[in-house]
Amino acid sequence: MYVRGGLNPRRLSRGSWRLFLVAIVLSLAVYLIHDRLGFQALEVPALPVATIGIVVSVFLGFVSASAYARWWEARTVWGEIINASRSWANSCLTLTDPVAGAEGAPDEVALLARRHLAWVNALCFQLRPMPTPAGTEETGAAVPGSRDRYLSFLSEQEADTLAGKANPAVHILRLQGEALRRMRRAGQLDDYRLVELVRALSGLYDCQGKCERIRNTPFPEQFTYFGRLFTWMLIVLLPFAFVDAFVRLADNYPVMSVVARDYIYALVPFNTLISWVFFLLQRVSESCSDPFDGKPTDVPIAALTRLIEIDLLQMLGEDAPKPCQPVEGALY
Amino acid sequence: MYVRGGLNPRRLSRGSWRLFLVAIVLSLAVYLIHDRLGFQALEVPALPVATIGIVVSVFLGFVSASAYARWWEARTVWGEIINASRSWANSCLTLTDPVAGAEGAPDEVALLARRHLAWVNALCFQLRPMPTPAGTEETGAAVPGSRDRYLSFLSEQEADTLAGKANPAVHILRLQGEALRRMRRAGQLDDYRLVELVRALSGLYDCQGKCERIRNTPFPEQFTYFGRLFTWMLIVLLPFAFVDAFVRLADNYPVMSVVARDYIYALVPFNTLISWVFFLLQRVSESCSDPFDGKPTDVPIAALTRLIEIDLLQMLGEDAPKPCQPVEGALY
Amino acid sequence: MYVRGGLNPRRLSRGSWRLFLVAIVLSLAVYLIHDRLGFQALEVPALPVATIGIVVSVFLGFVSASAYARWWEARTVWGEIINASRSWANSCLTLTDPVAGAEGAPDEVALLARRHLAWVNALCFQLRPMPTPAGTEETGAAVPGSRDRYLSFLSEQEADTLAGKANPAVHILRLQGEALRRMRRAGQLDDYRLVELVRALSGLYDCQGKCERIRNTPFPEQFTYFGRLFTWMLIVLLPFAFVDAFVRLADNYPVMSVVARDYIYALVPFNTLISWVFFLLQRVSESCSDPFDGKPTDVPIAALTRLIEIDLLQMLGEDAPKPCQPVEGALY
Amino acid sequence: MYVRGGLNPRRLSRGSWRLFLVAIVLSLAVYLIHDRLGFQALEVPALPVATIGIVVSVFLGFVSASAYARWWEARTVWGEIINASRSWANSCLTLTDPVAGAEGAPDEVALLARRHLAWVNALCFQLRPMPTPAGTEETGAAVPGSRDRYLSFLSEQEADTLAGKANPAVHILRLQGEALRRMRRAGQLDDYRLVELVRALSGLYDCQGKCERIRNTPFPEQFTYFGRLFTWMLIVLLPFAFVDAFVRLADNYPVMSVVARDYIYALVPFNTLISWVFFLLQRVSESCSDPFDGKPTDVPIAALTRLIEIDLLQMLGEDAPKPCQPVEGALY
Amino acid sequence: MYVRGGLNPRRLSRGSWRLFLVAIVLSLAVYLIHDRLGFQALEVPALPVATIGIVVSVFLGFVSASAYARWWEARTVWGEIINASRSWANSCLTLTDPVAGAEGAPDEVALLARRHLAWVNALCFQLRPMPTPAGTEETGAAVPGSRDRYLSFLSEQEADTLAGKANPAVHILRLQGEALRRMRRAGQLDDYRLVELVRALSGLYDCQGKCERIRNTPFPEQFTYFGRLFTWMLIVLLPFAFVDAFVRLADNYPVMSVVARDYIYALVPFNTLISWVFFLLQRVSESCSDPFDGKPTDVPIAALTRLIEIDLLQMLGEDAPKPCQPVEGALY
Repeated sequence: MYVRGGLNPRRLSRGSWRLFLVAIVLSLAVYLIHDRLGFQALEVPALPVATIGIVVSVFLGFVSASAYARWWEARTVWGEIINASRSWANSCLTLTDPVAGAEGAPDEVALLARRHLAWVNALCFQLRPMPTPAGTEETGAAVPGSRDRYLSFLSEQEADTLAGKANPAVHILRLQGEALRRMRRAGQLDDYRLVELVRALSGLYDCQGKCERIRNTPFPEQFTYFGRLFTWMLIVLLPFAFVDAFVRLADNYPVMSVVARDYIYALVPFNTLISWVFFLLQRVSESCSDPFDGKPTDVPIAALTRLIEIDLLQMLGEDAPKPCQPVEGALY
Repeated sequence: MYVRGGLNPRRLSRGSWRLFLVAIVLSLAVYLIHDRLGFQALEVPALPVATIGIVVSVFLGFVSASAYARWWEARTVWGEIINASRSWANSCLTLTDPVAGAEGAPDEVALLARRHLAWVNALCFQLRPMPTPAGTEETGAAVPGSRDRYLSFLSEQEADTLAGKANPAVHILRLQGEALRRMRRAGQLDDYRLVELVRALSGLYDCQGKCERIRNTPFPEQFTYFGRLFTWMLIVLLPFAFVDAFVRLADNYPVMSVVARDYIYALVPFNTLISWVFFLLQRVSESCSDPFDGKPTDVPIAALTRLIEIDLLQMLGEDAPKPCQPVEGALY
Repeated sequence: MYVRGGLNPRRLSRGSWRLFLVAIVLSLAVYLIHDRLGFQALEVPALPVATIGIVVSVFLGFVSASAYARWWEARTVWGEIINASRSWANSCLTLTDPVAGAEGAPDEVALLARRHLAWVNALCFQLRPMPTPAGTEETGAAVPGSRDRYLSFLSEQEADTLAGKANPAVHILRLQGEALRRMRRAGQLDDYRLVELVRALSGLYDCQGKCERIRNTPFPEQFTYFGRLFTWMLIVLLPFAFVDAFVRLADNYPVMSVVARDYIYALVPFNTLISWVFFLLQRVSESCSDPFDGKPTDVPIAALTRLIEIDLLQMLGEDAPKPCQPVEGALY
Repeated sequence: MYVRGGLNPRRLSRGSWRLFLVAIVLSLAVYLIHDRLGFQALEVPALPVATIGIVVSVFLGFVSASAYARWWEARTVWGEIINASRSWANSCLTLTDPVAGAEGAPDEVALLARRHLAWVNALCFQLRPMPTPAGTEETGAAVPGSRDRYLSFLSEQEADTLAGKANPAVHILRLQGEALRRMRRAGQLDDYRLVELVRALSGLYDCQGKCERIRNTPFPEQFTYFGRLFTWMLIVLLPFAFVDAFVRLADNYPVMSVVARDYIYALVPFNTLISWVFFLLQRVSESCSDPFDGKPTDVPIAALTRLIEIDLLQMLGEDAPKPCQPVEGALY
Repeated sequence: MYVRGGLNPRRLSRGSWRLFLVAIVLSLAVYLIHDRLGFQALEVPALPVATIGIVVSVFLGFVSASAYARWWEARTVWGEIINASRSWANSCLTLTDPVAGAEGAPDEVALLARRHLAWVNALCFQLRPMPTPAGTEETGAAVPGSRDRYLSFLSEQEADTLAGKANPAVHILRLQGEALRRMRRAGQLDDYRLVELVRALSGLYDCQGKCERIRNTPFPEQFTYFGRLFTWMLIVLLPFAFVDAFVRLADNYPVMSVVARDYIYALVPFNTLISWVFFLLQRVSESCSDPFDGKPTDVPIAALTRLIEIDLLQMLGEDAPKPCQPVEGALY
């Protein structure tokens, strides 16, 4: 996610050079063939191309809106994870009874909170296993959303039970269920409060499932593929149509004067500019479509994981790590 | 569902040859009649046709957005089924008491989970009874989402009770209710935990009903029908209007020269390209409308069913099957 | 609701003849007055009319999207009714205790299910009291969604209490509440399970209220009224603007030749076609707006009511009626 | 809310005369200055104005969609109030125990229902304190949604406690809480059923808050203000651009003939018609934006309040008043 | 939030002078270079620029809709906070038992309500720590949404525990949990009512998290950045294209007359007007995107905080402060 002011002209034009190259070469070529070689059948009428431009923009508008909705949904789910995490810690601390005559009993509650942090980190790691800038100076088991990080919140014995599981995060919540069951037997929970906490676990399964849905079901290939195809088809058509439009300008003047024919001074920058608008439109329409890929426009799940760690550890009265910092204008 | 990169030019153009044929033949015919036979009343003005092009694209934009919303809703419901399945297994394992002095008692809990897998497979089969590529090397009762698969998770006696039912999945959940009732009598559940699990069953009825709603209520025929009708009307009109547009190009030049008249070299490819854009737009707008039909763009319910099987069987500590693999770039 | 393939050209063009008449007569008249009588001030410029065409299509796009959302909401509510019905039967069967020493006690549970079917049928009847094709060969008290049908699921005494009530379905649920109260006193339910079932009744009130909201609050008159008004204004303007567009075509040719003037051969079919597109667009935009009117595009609530009857009666182990069949390509 | 068929041409054109005046005077003035005085620099090109027309319609499309969503949300909240009211009465009647040995005890339940009607009427009054046609022949304390009406459902003592409160409806629900507390002490409710009813009160606070949100947060001024501004700017520009468009028509004819110059016969009605379309579009886009203002297009909250009264009083077995009737085609 | 009628022409044009300057200077420069210096290659065709105008308006339409949705979501969350606050006070007052034999016991309930006000004020302060016009004559600890205000509702001991916490509001709710735990031990709450109130706390964590999500995740930079970029590119292109459009007007007249060339009288105001439309469109599209920044268009969270204070203090029977007043037409 770009922080405010994180997007500047340099970052913006990065990756646009290919477009500039295509647009300039193409418009020059069209101008030369059409005007210098006189092959006028090259020209295509401007009106249909303008129509296609509008059609493409309506299509990209739909893609933008849908992709943005996915991104916002992904962010919303992580918001729910934050809320559920705070509620989980608060509920555990409020609802459990101390076990009479057991020194280690308060630990169970703290373990519920720490195991929860293991789940959050595991989920973050499963959604984005590729290396991304962490935005933190820490390394190893201190990097939020890393494999080491989530294992560090579990006991060794628990970490062992996760071996070979297709989806470790699912089984961390199962471990929470097992712990609640133990606590009920130990008298720290009665039926009613047990059910309340089990319901909270179901809520966490919901959050996890929603993230995985967005992660594992990419935005329909056909939309992004055709968005790209249509945009490039349009960019290729544009100079052919502009020749028509510019030649028509010359009609305004009585004689096909030398000056009027020299529309090339306007054609090349104009074509490049208009092509760039469509190029950017297409790129921006796609930018939000798959929000767990580690791109700078994605949901900053490592930073959010760290936020949860801070709140929960402070609730337990422990020392909290520092929040993540933006890297090159973006949080990851 | 196409996996990332699952859509390539070959798959894309499959099915487009009919459009190419129509567009090329039509533009050639229009050119010949108009220009060689001189029947100029054939021409229609370009502006209204351009307008219709925009109108059609606005309509198709609405169709795309609505169809995509259906597809995403379908995928979301299956996400909920995944979440509810994990929660179901976790809740059953956490909330039930072992029956004192009964060896077979732990089985009841495992049976709740296995019967749930029967329900998931039955639902998958009811939504998509047609044969689709399974994406798995297994056969027979091991193919996810098949009739044999769901029966394999039930006892013979239970399978018999489903005979003659209009909707077997509905009655599998009824069997779950019966089992919970038995467990309460056996003392494995008290009232409070019973109600919690019955509520989970109601949640599963919700998921099933949502899938059936999307399956049984196709996207309104009138929208897809008119989308197709308008698009083809437009494709037929295009060459007539392009003749106007191309002839106007000739105005740019003082004499109706031989070169200028040879706009046919541009007309045919141009007409084909523009027609193809509208053709693809229409096809893509519809592609998501009915997401349980077994098309490559549909929700991959067999693969999701398998995912649930893996998670639940691993929770029970049993061996899990392999996940489904994409077939020709698409999961089914 | 049209079933797949339920919409064919014959059904499509039904009702379009009036449009055809208007479009043909109007374009002929405009042609005659303009061209034969030479009253050229009749002509209006094509560009503003094209603009209005796009404006109208943006407006109709909004109407389509909003109307479709209403229709889908209506269908969703009926989906919820199906889910809630299945859950209701399952919960009643799972949560109630048999009354010790009473032979008639199991009946109370079956009565809860049968009274529920009365409610579903009453709701269907209240939403659509006009006669519609039932899609069933049965008659009288067997027709789903009829007054006789819902009364047939109640005892005579219960039917009497509904007399004079403004909204019978509301009071059928009240009867359910009364029955639950009796069952609690009889010991078939304890407080906790009673509250769970009362909560289910509240859910049913929600479903009923949502249907009534859509039924009693028609899609804002101003939107449909203006949609129709704008479309007809446009259809009337079209031929005047086409004369301009067609006459301009003649500019392409050096002499105002006889052939060029005979644009009438193209004007009439072209005008009719374009007018038809807008006419259909307007009709399709409205088609989903009021989904409980008994039109072929509406939500098939009688068929859904029958579906619920089948599932619930089969849960009780009773014989179930046949599902409804489409009538002329549409379920009602 | 207009009932079906409630909008007719007379009601439609009411308020349009100002637009007609502006459009006619302006187009006449432009014609005279341009054509008779020959001040041709007055003309502006038609294409940019057509573009602005489309831009404005896209903007108004957004305004329409957002305003309609507000209106539908407002109606939905009132639908929830209806549902919650019916559920409240049903739950109170089902869940409370008669107090042993107290004659007045059944009253407490009826009082819960009557106090609820006070709340509904108070909410209606707070949302729309201005006088609106009630659609009923009754007067005084019988008019739904009036101050007298809501006080008539409270005891004098209760009415006194509301004096000086910023928001009486909030405190009526507090009175309900107090009553439930009393009933629990009297043994009519146990903890579990008490919590269920308190939760229902929270649901009513939700409904009230949603209404107040829509009431107190008008649709963003900037949207409606700019919608109006853009539309009027466009209406003023139109005749200047039409002069260009009409003069261009004259190009079609060899000589600038007298007939061709008399485009005024077409300009004035054409300009008026097109201006009217945009004028209506703007008005209709705003019509739903603030649904509690007492306009004929608003949510008919008095009529809905009356509906709730009828259902609840009939549930208590009391006489119910008549439903509200439409006034000049609209319910209020 | 602008109150009704809060936006007037003076406030509207504030900030537009830069646009006016650019538009006027640019159109003058283009006119001079093109017409007086005769450098005609400066001209660009009008059609592509019109197309870009529509494309930009479609993009800004998407931005408007998304930004408005964020704003409305933010307002909705604050609506939920209002509802949850009223419900919280009502539930606390209804569900807690007086402690037998303790004089200070009623205080605990009042403290729950006052601590809640601390949370609301702390949340308001955390969302908008910058100084904004309060709309109240009070100062210091009486200003709603200030740091002093929220501390004033806490005991000194409680205020101390917040020191050094990353997110004080999170820990105020933790204090509420601690208080509930104490009350349960003191016998003022049983398990069931305790869980109900803990669930309410989870609801408050949800509300807080939703606000923070909107606050901390700005509307994607790429959308607003490109919106601005495209709009300014368009504004710069406009005069070049208008020269084409205006020169074409001159075609309508036989001779390139002096009057016809003097299109400058129309060009400058016309260009300024059209540029202004796009400029305003862009500004209005962004106006709602980040609703917690203290702009006049933002959600008035200080005023809403004050509203909650009034309702809750009146419920406790205490004196309530005055509501906030609009400052320069806007509530903050």
